[in-house]
Amino acid sequence: MIPVSSRLHEGRALAQDVWTVFNAANLPSDCLNLGQGYMNFAPPKWITVAAEEALNTVGPNHYSHPKGRPRLRNAIKQFYGSQFNRDLNVDSEILVTSGANEGQYSVFTAFLEYGDEVIMFEPFFDQYLPSVTFNGGKPVYVPLHPPSHDISKPTSNDWSIDFEELRAAITPRTKMIIVNTPHNPVGKVYTRTELEKIAVLAEEFNLLVMADEVYDCLVFDNKEHVRIATLPGMWERTVTVGSAGKSFAATGWRVGWLIGPASILTPTLAASTRIVFCANSPLQEAAAAGLEQAAERKFFETQLKEYQERRDIFVSTFDRLGITYTLPEGTYFVLMDSSSVKIPDDYPFPESVLGRGRDFRACWFIAMEIGVSSIPVSEFYCKEHVSLGENYIRFSFCKDLDTLKAAGERLQNLKKYLA
Amino acid sequence: MIPVSSRLHEGRALAQDVWTVFNAANLPSDCLNLGQGYMNFAPPKWITVAAEEALNTVGPNHYSHPKGRPRLRNAIKQFYGSQFNRDLNVDSEILVTSGANEGQYSVFTAFLEYGDEVIMFEPFFDQYLPSVTFNGGKPVYVPLHPPSHDISKPTSNDWSIDFEELRAAITPRTKMIIVNTPHNPVGKVYTRTELEKIAVLAEEFNLLVMADEVYDCLVFDNKEHVRIATLPGMWERTVTVGSAGKSFAATGWRVGWLIGPASILTPTLAASTRIVFCANSPLQEAAAAGLEQAAERKFFETQLKEYQERRDIFVSTFDRLGITYTLPEGTYFVLMDSSSVKIPDDYPFPESVLGRGRDFRACWFIAMEIGVSSIPVSEFYCKEHVSLGENYIRFSFCKDLDTLKAAGERLQNLKKYLA
Repeated sequence: MIPVSSRLHEGRALAQDVWTVFNAANLPSDCLNLGQGYMNFAPPKWITVAAEEALNTVGPNHYSHPKGRPRLRNAIKQFYGSQFNRDLNVDSEILVTSGANEGQYSVFTAFLEYGDEVIMFEPFFDQYLPSVTFNGGKPVYVPLHPPSHDISKPTSNDWSIDFEELRAAITPRTKMIIVNTPHNPVGKVYTRTELEKIAVLAEEFNLLVMADEVYDCLVFDNKEHVRIATLPGMWERTVTVGSAGKSFAATGWRVGWLIGPASILTPTLAASTRIVFCANSPLQEAAAAGLEQAAERKFFETQLKEYQERRDIFVSTFDRLGITYTLPEGTYFVLMDSSSVKIPDDYPFPESVLGRGRDFRACWFIAMEIGVSSIPVSEFYCKEHVSLGENYIRFSFCKDLDTLKAAGERLQNLKKYLA
Repeated sequence: MIPVSSRLHEGRALAQDVWTVFNAANLPSDCLNLGQGYMNFAPPKWITVAAEEALNTVGPNHYSHPKGRPRLRNAIKQFYGSQFNRDLNVDSEILVTSGANEGQYSVFTAFLEYGDEVIMFEPFFDQYLPSVTFNGGKPVYVPLHPPSHDISKPTSNDWSIDFEELRAAITPRTKMIIVNTPHNPVGKVYTRTELEKIAVLAEEFNLLVMADEVYDCLVFDNKEHVRIATLPGMWERTVTVGSAGKSFAATGWRVGWLIGPASILTPTLAASTRIVFCANSPLQEAAAAGLEQAAERKFFETQLKEYQERRDIFVSTFDRLGITYTLPEGTYFVLMDSSSVKIPDDYPFPESVLGRGRDFRACWFIAMEIGVSSIPVSEFYCKEHVSLGENYIRFSFCKDLDTLKAAGERLQNLKKYLA
């Protein structure tokens, strides 16, 4: 037996993760899957045909430049340039990665020194934690504070940052801060004021900012989506993360991108080139077609309307039940407060769910008894802060309307379990 | 300016690599590219249609299980089971990765402790070095000794291992040994005897063996390709690496796989899941179709014949010139001994080529004057051993016959520069 690296013993890497516990295979076969965040519909046909065209030529079946295919880098430049108020340099300020996930991982590989600290807001996208620890970093957690119980109709904007807490979390070893906006799982779209305050601290303490904006095309109610990279002085220290999977309903394509200054992307390219060499070529061509034609086809405007309808229809089920939830301003996630659901003490829970946050039991109970799966939010907190998250469970509404309506009907059966 | 991780200063990660120096963009536009190892032909149509089918459904556009899509894991089990004399367990003994490269990287992430040593034979596939150092490991080099000058017609089998040298390279910190067979860039197919001797050492010193066999479908002249994992006692300590890109002329698909015991693949899955989450889904479906139908279509038999013809036609140009080369028993690479090529002292070389091995100048000179690009082999040696490799330049013959014939004609013009 060859001993594994000690890095696997940190960051929950070998623990049974929440995706495995709540995998469809473990749940009733007719359970409606609102757990993992992937669509039950396909990417647009006009985008997939670009992949088919690529498959029928020679070059796009072979290695791409590790920076990304020129066509896609050009499309990113055209699409995002105005949003960043910059004439983006396709050779040094855009890097295509094997999904946003690998892009983030490569930034950690490129910049973290053993013992460097990375600040992340809780609840956090669960991949951040092991991605940091695998690269020798130390995660430091600053909670987003849940809405006060006095608020009868909270929105994601009611999840708040205590800036004194944030400042206190910074040490001489702090190297990076991750700002995920729109935020998974809360749905929070950070306000300009919040981002300005984060920017002040980033400048004061010379921090690298990872702006995880993979849900940038899903900001509802005409709320302003501010990119922290565009705040004064922030371009030079910010890397912004984007995703073809989230943008084009193609989570399995594994095409993402980073936008930022050469001082950040050159080292990150060196890391990414060694980790994966390059992203897959045919689907880079498809992602390029998506960005090239999006404006003309009003693709993102239409998609946003569809998602807003999905959100509104889905949350209406909680309104009818009188269950508290956080109305998301962005993303395709909604947090339900499960504290009012009475779970029978003697319910037969599996081992994998016992001994975790109360939300694990709530998710399991609702999946088994109601037939709708969700994800426990305490998984997105560090061990010490599990209690902050264990009232919440996350539903993904990146599903077609029929599924969401059916899930809403089933959830009405929660009524008999409400305290 | 945010300082980069010190890991980038090791393993040449920030240096201008050989692929950049000899990139087509730096060479004459009509240069025939026999440098980087990718095909100038497309994957078979019957395989790409499977990708098209996947693109036209829902599921295969979304996340795959981090272990790989069930269809592909089943196809790998069926295709490779008999080669490993095992009923491979699709849940624990097969792991699909984002290209063979990411699979290898994930093994290093899963197993290397800071300061662990990894033995690799020189010349080595250049990605190994930074992949090891990024994960805190220390590469240890053991040269394959070039054929003696007395051999007029050397083959890759004449590149030999000094087993005393190999044993002497093992220390208490040695964790892994990489065995790349068929070998890039030498073309060597390790003999059963050589692998048995390596196996003895691996057992004696409890080493993990990474068997990089991505060219397993390219073994010529009915030479036996032995998988080290099948030697007595070796299954438990060996992870074997495979590649859809090499197998199906689709280097840009980024689909690879690892085969090995659960004790190696479970930790590697934990690493891979965090690094990339999963490999892209549509091209996993295509790779599955490739493996499913290969036997019935006699695909690999036919492809092998085609490559053998390519090899024989291409090396005949060196025979005509009287230039020494190593006849490869496997892979699509051939090493030419460039020591007889007289390079004018006053030739105008760029900075990127000066101060490197003599082979850098040979490759540059031949690309500029003859119009055929190649790759200097000293890049595949550690700094201290550059002199061992600097007579050799690598040509890739994964090109159509017309290109290879044209390159052969051009190379006849070397005659006037031969000493």
